This record gives sequence, structure tokens and C-alpha cells, in this order.
Amino acid sequence: MELLKQKILSEGRVIGKDILKVDSFLNHQIDVALFNEIGKEFKRRFFDKKVTKILTIEASGIAIACIAAQYFKVPVVFAKKTESRNLDQETYESEAYSFTKQKTYSIRVSKRYMAKQDHILIIDDFLANGKAAQALIDIVHQAGAALAGVGIVIEKGFQNGGEILRSQNVQVESLAIVKSLEENQILFK
Amino acid sequence: MELLKQKILSEGRVIGKDILKVDSFLNHQIDVALFNEIGKEFKRRFFDKKVTKILTIEASGIAIACIAAQYFKVPVVFAKKTESRNLDQETYESEAYSFTKQKTYSIRVSKRYMAKQDHILIIDDFLANGKAAQALIDIVHQAGAALAGVGIVIEKGFQNGGEILRSQNVQVESLAIVKSLEENQILFK
Repeated sequence: MELLKQKILSEGRVIGKDILKVDSFLNHQIDVALFNEIGKEFKRRFFDKKVTKILTIEASGIAIACIAAQYFKVPVVFAKKTESRNLDQETYESEAYSFTKQKTYSIRVSKRYMAKQDHILIIDDFLANGKAAQALIDIVHQAGAALAGVGIVIEKGFQNGGEILRSQNVQVESLAIVKSLEENQILFK
Repeated sequence: MELLKQKILSEGRVIGKDILKVDSFLNHQIDVALFNEIGKEFKRRFFDKKVTKILTIEASGIAIACIAAQYFKVPVVFAKKTESRNLDQETYESEAYSFTKQKTYSIRVSKRYMAKQDHILIIDDFLANGKAAQALIDIVHQAGAALAGVGIVIEKGFQNGGEILRSQNVQVESLAIVKSLEENQILFK
């Protein structure tokens, strides 16, 4: 997606060899107009898939998922990472490892909000090691629902998350795939 | 806002005397169509205010803020609750107490994303003790920016957050104000 790649090139910042900071428009400050273009693009990529609900994970996936959901006209469910007094005891649970925070965490989705009749499109902002996406897919499977696919804004193509998901025959649509962040340069696939 | 109150009455669940679970449409599963009506209503309530940016807090404020931002045509910044490798060291920081989680936490906003020329509209899903809103207002003040007001989806009128904010001459627009949750009944003001 050219508009997205241009935004990444003009505002993205490389930290070390493997971190791409896009907090000016993706995951701290949010460019809502850009997100609408991203939402339209996800709809184009999954135009032929039945989608009854979009699943994402807090916190950075929420904005993308909700704005995109307007183009699919479906509700959004976001997996929660922390336990709170409000959360159902009746939940699907899975585990993931955070690349940026360097720790394992649990994710939960209330069983009330995912049924076997659902066709779930997973949407998230980043795809790196694939652990978050795999945890979300695991929840879709626990619910007995169908997986329509996985929509990602930025995939770090030099990490193996994309390869793992595609090898499972999942339709993965990444709107920008970064080939390398070496020497402070952002190179797309 | 009548549509919102009807939704709360038909899908809200009372836990104890002071917790209102609205996770079927507000803060776990998200009714995106309803959020668009909420966004339009916030625009009506703040029609005469200059707004350059919407400020919210992760995670449940994000969806509301982003969908509402479409009607103001401004970006969104969400305050982060946890420290991550990606976050700037150059941040405005404040402290809040979570009513639902019963613990204190810090919130941070990168200095890059709030300037003194900004006119900030704060948007969040709930207003209870007002601590989260006060922490966000504190961040606006640290940045030297102007506060356009505070937009809240559901205010728990039997807690004092609303009173505290209004006594500071802040324009607080709550789309539904719950007077009481006693005896398992949801009563609006």
C-alpha cells in the first residue's frame, strides 16, 4: 500500500536493527484519515471472504480494527491482556510472547463474543514473531469459529511470523512488508 | 443520548452496587455502528469548541476516540499505561487510580505529540472517580495546551468524578449518566 509506505518512510524511525518506531501515526498518535485508507484496503484484500466479526488485541490493534470494521460493517472484539474485575470468568485463553516488551503474557476473549458460526478476520498493527497472531488464531479455533484471514498493517519480513502463518495456509495480507531495518534504513519487500 | 441509554438498558449488566458491565458493546466487544452515532453526538456537544487533537487512554478509550475523531477530522493520541521498549523517554507523565482494577498506575504521553498550540478534547468510555480524566487533564496542562473539554460515554453519577471536573469549570459532556445501580437496576439521571 503505497500511501502507507510513504508515511513509514517519512515518519518512521529505526531503533537498533529490528525496531521500527511508527508512534507518530500508528501506535501512540493515530492518523485517523490514514487508518480509513487502511480500512478500505483491508476490505479490498478480503473482499471475497465472509467476515462476521473482527478480532484484535489491545491496545494498538484496537484503532485499526475499529476503523476497518466500518468497511466490513461488523463488530470488533479485542483480546484483553490483563485481568480486571470486569472480565468474565468464562473466557477463551491463550499465550503469547511480546517482542517489544520481551515477556510472555496471556490473552483472553469472553466466550460470549465468539461463536462457532462466526467467520473471524484478525487485524493487528504489527506482525513480527507471529506469537500474538497465533494466540488470536488459537482463540478462534477454541471457539470453533472459521478464520477468514489475518490483516496486518506492517509486517517485519525479516522475522518469521509471516512465514509461520502462511505455511498454515492462512491468508495473510500485510499492507507493508519491511525487508530490512539494517543501517538505519527502511527497506520494503 | 437515547440510543445509548436503550443499549445500556438492554445489554448492560449490574455487578454488585457500583459496577456496570457493558462489555457486549463498549469495552470488549465493540458496536462500531453505535460508536459512530456516539462520535456524531460528541461533535454536536462540542460543535463550538476548537479541537486540534483528541486525547484518550488505553485501552477502552481508543475505539471511541478514533471513531469520534472522524467527525472532528483530527488525530488521536492515547496515553499509555505501561512502559515498553518503544516509548520515548521524553514524555509527560501523570498518575491515576483505577476503580475497576483497584490500583495506582502511571500514564505517559510523548512530548512530541502534544504542543502548547493544541486544543485538546479528552474522550473516554467511563467517568467514575475521575482520576483517569484528571491525569489526562494534568498532561494537557503540562504541555501548556488548551483543554476544549471532556467527552464521556457513561458517567457514574453516584461517584464524584463528574462533580470534581465540573467544579474546575471543565465542559464535561456525558452521553449517559447513571444515577444508581442499586438492587440490580440501572437508573439514569
